[in-house]
Amino acid sequence: MKKTILLLGGYGFIGSNILEYIDTNLGNQYNVVVFDMQTSHRDGLLFSCVNASYAGDFSDSILLESIFKNHKIDYVIHSISTTIPITSFNARYDIESNLIPTIELMNIMLNYNVKKIVYLSSGGAVYGNMKKDHRETDVVYPISSYGVVKLSIEKYLMQYATLYGLEPLILRLSNPYGKYHYSMKQGLCNVAVNCAVNNNEFIVYGDGNAQKDYIYVGDFVDILFKLIILDVSNEVINIGSRQVYSVNEILHNISYYIPDFTWQYQDSSKYDIKYFNLNTEKLHKYIGDYNFMGLSEGIQLIINWEMKRCNKCI
Amino acid sequence: MKKTILLLGGYGFIGSNILEYIDTNLGNQYNVVVFDMQTSHRDGLLFSCVNASYAGDFSDSILLESIFKNHKIDYVIHSISTTIPITSFNARYDIESNLIPTIELMNIMLNYNVKKIVYLSSGGAVYGNMKKDHRETDVVYPISSYGVVKLSIEKYLMQYATLYGLEPLILRLSNPYGKYHYSMKQGLCNVAVNCAVNNNEFIVYGDGNAQKDYIYVGDFVDILFKLIILDVSNEVINIGSRQVYSVNEILHNISYYIPDFTWQYQDSSKYDIKYFNLNTEKLHKYIGDYNFMGLSEGIQLIINWEMKRCNKCI
Repeated sequence: MKKTILLLGGYGFIGSNILEYIDTNLGNQYNVVVFDMQTSHRDGLLFSCVNASYAGDFSDSILLESIFKNHKIDYVIHSISTTIPITSFNARYDIESNLIPTIELMNIMLNYNVKKIVYLSSGGAVYGNMKKDHRETDVVYPISSYGVVKLSIEKYLMQYATLYGLEPLILRLSNPYGKYHYSMKQGLCNVAVNCAVNNNEFIVYGDGNAQKDYIYVGDFVDILFKLIILDVSNEVINIGSRQVYSVNEILHNISYYIPDFTWQYQDSSKYDIKYFNLNTEKLHKYIGDYNFMGLSEGIQLIINWEMKRCNKCI
Repeated sequence: MKKTILLLGGYGFIGSNILEYIDTNLGNQYNVVVFDMQTSHRDGLLFSCVNASYAGDFSDSILLESIFKNHKIDYVIHSISTTIPITSFNARYDIESNLIPTIELMNIMLNYNVKKIVYLSSGGAVYGNMKKDHRETDVVYPISSYGVVKLSIEKYLMQYATLYGLEPLILRLSNPYGKYHYSMKQGLCNVAVNCAVNNNEFIVYGDGNAQKDYIYVGDFVDILFKLIILDVSNEVINIGSRQVYSVNEILHNISYYIPDFTWQYQDSSKYDIKYFNLNTEKLHKYIGDYNFMGLSEGIQLIINWEMKRCNKCI
């Protein structure tokens, strides 16, 4: 019998990749109920694993509860965020639109005896700016409200595990890039490729020497399901490829494929992180070795995807 | 010229002790503006350092802002909590009545260019239940919403320090006891003494072997002002005496003075912590050695205070 996943943020960047992955690899194992701001995928894509779609505001707990009434949910994958680090200056809005609705979600889950939830947290936002590899047991210094809210959600999830038997799996993701990424406000690789493909100049905040680890979203989704199938829970796990690149390296990589691509440097914001790399020893204890997509190959994949979106051919 | 302290929760347990301490030791240095739910001290005490009192709800940010309009505030001491660990099951209320008003407070402080804030956090609630001494750099596992909210406030304070130049001093306090403690819902030493003095049986949750470190509130307030005068900021500091006692030891200590005192054991709650002791190396780097009040002496002081409240004499 198929399990039913409630996918929160199902038509977003991570959500769309999860739907595609299930259709391609796990269609005989999972049905999906999508909850998103949008009623359908913005590119008009249809995913055969999707049984039902609910469109609404994450704060609408009555709508959210109706999903649990209408469907027997086995897993929740929580991939909603109403903010991104650089737009989370309004901490009150961040708390009211992300933290509180997530607590309401947890309460609904308990009422409907749904225990399993995967929460997509963020490595970069939670750990803060320290020039070293970050382990799950490190003390954390979030430098945006986005990071504090993610951390608070993590702590409530772990508390509900202790008190009420919730079984959360918390994934602190590094910097994912890949298909179905539409935001022009975050996601260096994608935004830069989008500029390159559309002949727009790209703005680099800082000197371009800031280094971070990047992970292809397809690898992330594959790892996510490995962990779900292994039934890992009550854990916080870093997910990254340990492939660290500077902004400049990535831009040069893109310009290898799109030689006309240009960029310009501007002053760095206070939110900027100079070096970031997640320690992933814990992850590999669960999944063993993993053959991550190389950056250059991943960049080509998003160039192809962006070209298709623009009706161009490479 | 005297400095003006805005004391949030000024007529509560910690607040009252701060007011008494200023009157006794620092009356020539500080004026105080009190913000509290109550318009005056519940025992009718008057403190000569108090210049003005505002009564209202901490969520009333317009009232809060009017204080900054009416007075030139130099320091804020934030000693308000609308919840305690065992009443914080309603996480939404906890967030809405503590976390969000504290963020509004920080925003008001920035608008009025007030940088200094002392935040009374909680060792027991933030660290969680691990049988070891807790350092400020430990990863934390709060087991109540109260603890998550305290942690979130700490993280926002440190973030506002980085982004906007706020100068917070965050004190993770162990288990304070002493005069002006009125709650019958928390504070083992005080609640037990109150029962003993009033011939009520005391209920012990668990077997009474749980051990925690206790600190006399007068010592805490003295240390607080040492740190303020040293101008320590942008730090999280544990404050405890490292005097660890079991519940049973404390009850026997009280019964030494009040032999009729009786107690009864009941099942332990999930919120119970078996062992708790704060590592205070960081504190002593700032203040050097400190001669803490012994438990037995502190217990006598609260017995005397409770006796006076009951119009009895020891």
